[in-house]
Amino acid sequence: MPKLISINNLQQIIKTVGINDFFKGSIEAMREQYKRWQEFDKGPRHVTHYKHGVSELMPTADDELYSVKYVNGHPYNPKDKKFTVVAVGLLARVSDGYPVLISEMTLLTAIRTAATSALASDYLARKDSKTLAIIGTGSQAEFQVLAHHVLFDLAQVKYFDIDPEAMAKFANNMADQSFNLEACNSAEQCVADADIIITATADKQRLTILEKDWIKPGMHINGVGGDCAGKTELDPDILHESKIVVEYLPQTAIEGEIQHLTNKDVHAELWQIVQQQKSGRDNNSEITLFDSVGFAIEDFAILKYLHNQALKLNIGEFLDLIPRCQDPKNLFQLLKE
Amino acid sequence: MPKLISINNLQQIIKTVGINDFFKGSIEAMREQYKRWQEFDKGPRHVTHYKHGVSELMPTADDELYSVKYVNGHPYNPKDKKFTVVAVGLLARVSDGYPVLISEMTLLTAIRTAATSALASDYLARKDSKTLAIIGTGSQAEFQVLAHHVLFDLAQVKYFDIDPEAMAKFANNMADQSFNLEACNSAEQCVADADIIITATADKQRLTILEKDWIKPGMHINGVGGDCAGKTELDPDILHESKIVVEYLPQTAIEGEIQHLTNKDVHAELWQIVQQQKSGRDNNSEITLFDSVGFAIEDFAILKYLHNQALKLNIGEFLDLIPRCQDPKNLFQLLKE
Repeated sequence: MPKLISINNLQQIIKTVGINDFFKGSIEAMREQYKRWQEFDKGPRHVTHYKHGVSELMPTADDELYSVKYVNGHPYNPKDKKFTVVAVGLLARVSDGYPVLISEMTLLTAIRTAATSALASDYLARKDSKTLAIIGTGSQAEFQVLAHHVLFDLAQVKYFDIDPEAMAKFANNMADQSFNLEACNSAEQCVADADIIITATADKQRLTILEKDWIKPGMHINGVGGDCAGKTELDPDILHESKIVVEYLPQTAIEGEIQHLTNKDVHAELWQIVQQQKSGRDNNSEITLFDSVGFAIEDFAILKYLHNQALKLNIGEFLDLIPRCQDPKNLFQLLKE
Repeated sequence: MPKLISINNLQQIIKTVGINDFFKGSIEAMREQYKRWQEFDKGPRHVTHYKHGVSELMPTADDELYSVKYVNGHPYNPKDKKFTVVAVGLLARVSDGYPVLISEMTLLTAIRTAATSALASDYLARKDSKTLAIIGTGSQAEFQVLAHHVLFDLAQVKYFDIDPEAMAKFANNMADQSFNLEACNSAEQCVADADIIITATADKQRLTILEKDWIKPGMHINGVGGDCAGKTELDPDILHESKIVVEYLPQTAIEGEIQHLTNKDVHAELWQIVQQQKSGRDNNSEITLFDSVGFAIEDFAILKYLHNQALKLNIGEFLDLIPRCQDPKNLFQLLKE
C-alpha cells in the first residue's frame, strides 16, 4: 500500500530531522541524482494550457522508481488567497508499477527548487561568498536563502521586493537566523556588493529585474523566477557576459532566460558540472548564471529522499488505494465483498 | 482539500448505489462526455517504457475539470500474485488548479472500460441482442458482461478462456445473474450464434482469437484486449469486412486492432456516432466492430461521476494534501508552525 505524506506529515518530518538538516539532505539528494543524470528517462513536461493558468505533469524514471508531479500555475490565485502553485507527487516502483508514495508537493517543490539552486551555487558561486541578495521575497524566498545558508556561511542577506508586505513577511520569517538582514529600497541597492544574487519574482511577463551595469566580476546569479515561455527577469546583456548553466537545454531553451539566446551561448547543463565533465567557476572574476526552470529529476530526488525519511521515522499512514490481490484475474471479487 | 476515495470507499459507494445502477450511471457518464468530445483537451498518453512493463499518464481537461490517471501495465505481475494493471486518478479544478479528488482507479478503470464498450454496443449491436459471447475471462470479463446486461436484456452468456480456473472464477462471480451461463470448449464454439462478441484476452502479442469464418452477418464485436502496439486479437479479414468504430484515431492507429489497416478503413470515432454525425448500425446484417484501447476522456467521465456520487453520499475523507493559505506569499510559514 502506498504511503501518504500529508502537509502535517511533512511538517512532522522536517521538525524531527531539523530544518537545516532537511535542506542539507535535500541538496545532497539533488547531487546524488544529478550524478546519475544519464540513467533517467527524460522528456518534456506535459502542459495543459487554460485561459488563466496551466496544469503540468512532470514524469521521470530510473531503473528502480518512477515519479510524477501534478503541478498547476495560476497567477491570479493570490487575489483569492490561494497559492499560485500547488502540487501533488506520486512515486511508483518500476518493477511492478505499484505506487509506493502519494505526497504533498507544494512545500516539497519550494524545497527542491531551493536545493537545486544551492547545488548550482556550490559549483558556480565563489567559495568565500558571504553576502546574498534576493530580489523577490515571495513564496520561494526563505527556502532559497536557507538552502544557501546550509552551504555558504552567509553573513549578510540583502532583500528587495516591490511589495513592502512581502518584505516584512520575509524579514519576520528570517529574524532568528544567524546572518544580518538588510532591507533595500531598490534592486540596484540590493545587488551592490553581493556575492550571490537570487532573482525570484513572479510576474508573468518579460521584465528586466537586473541591469547589466549593476553586475560586477565574480558575482553568481541564480535566476529562479523566469520559468515559462515569455517570462524572463534578466537584461539580455547580462546573459552575453555570463557563464550560463541550465538544467536541461531542450526545456530551458523554451522556458528559461535563454529564450533570448542560442544554445551555443550556454556553457553546460548542471549534471555536466556535478559530474565534473565541464568546469564550474574557473576564477574569482567571471560572472556565472544558473538559469533554473525546474526539472522532473529534482522532483524524483526529493520524493525519494522524503520517502526514505518517512519510512525511517515511521511517519505517514498507508493508503488503501491499491487493491489487495489474491487472484490477479479476480478483480471483480472486490465488488462482492 | 481533495477528497480521497480508497478501495473501501469505492466499495461502499457501489454497494450504496447498487452495482447495476452504478454501471448504468457510468455508461450515461460516458455518453454525456462523448457528447461533449470537442470541448476536451486531447493528446496522446505519456508512456514510459521499461524492460518488463510501462507506466502511463492519461490527462485531459474541459473548461471546468482536469483529470489524469497514472496506470501501469506489467504483464508478469500475476506470477507474483499482483494485478497487471493498477491505477490512481486525480481530478483538479481548472479555475485554480487545486486538486479536488485522489481516487483508486484500478476498479474504476475496469468499470469505465466496460461502460465504454457497452456504450459502443448501444449504437452498434442489434437492439434485440440476447446472446453475448466473451473470450477471455480474466479481470475485465465480469465488468464487461454486467455493463452490457444493463443495456441489453441478456438471456445467454457464453464464455471461453484457455485457463480453466479463470472460467471457473467467472462462472462463480456471475452465478447469481439472471442470464444462462454456457461454458465453451473453444473460441469457435463460444461465438457461434452470439449477437455480441467480446474479446478480452491479455497476451501481449499478435494472436488470432477470432477467425473470419466464425463471424456471421449481424454480429457486433467489442475488441477490448488488443490495446498496445504489437498486441492484437482479430483476424485481419474480419477488419476488412466490418464497420469499424474507434475512440480516437491517432491513438487507436498505434495501439488498436487497426494497426493492420489504413485510416480510411475506419468508419467513425465513437463520439461521431454518439453525436449522430455518423451512423451506428444501419441494418441487421452488417458486422460491426468497436476497437477499444481506452482514452483519457473515459477516465475523466468516471472520475467526475464518482466525485459527484462521493459528495452526494458523503463518503471518503478529505486529505490534508494542499496547504491552507492565509498569505499566498507566506508558504514558509508552514515550516514555522
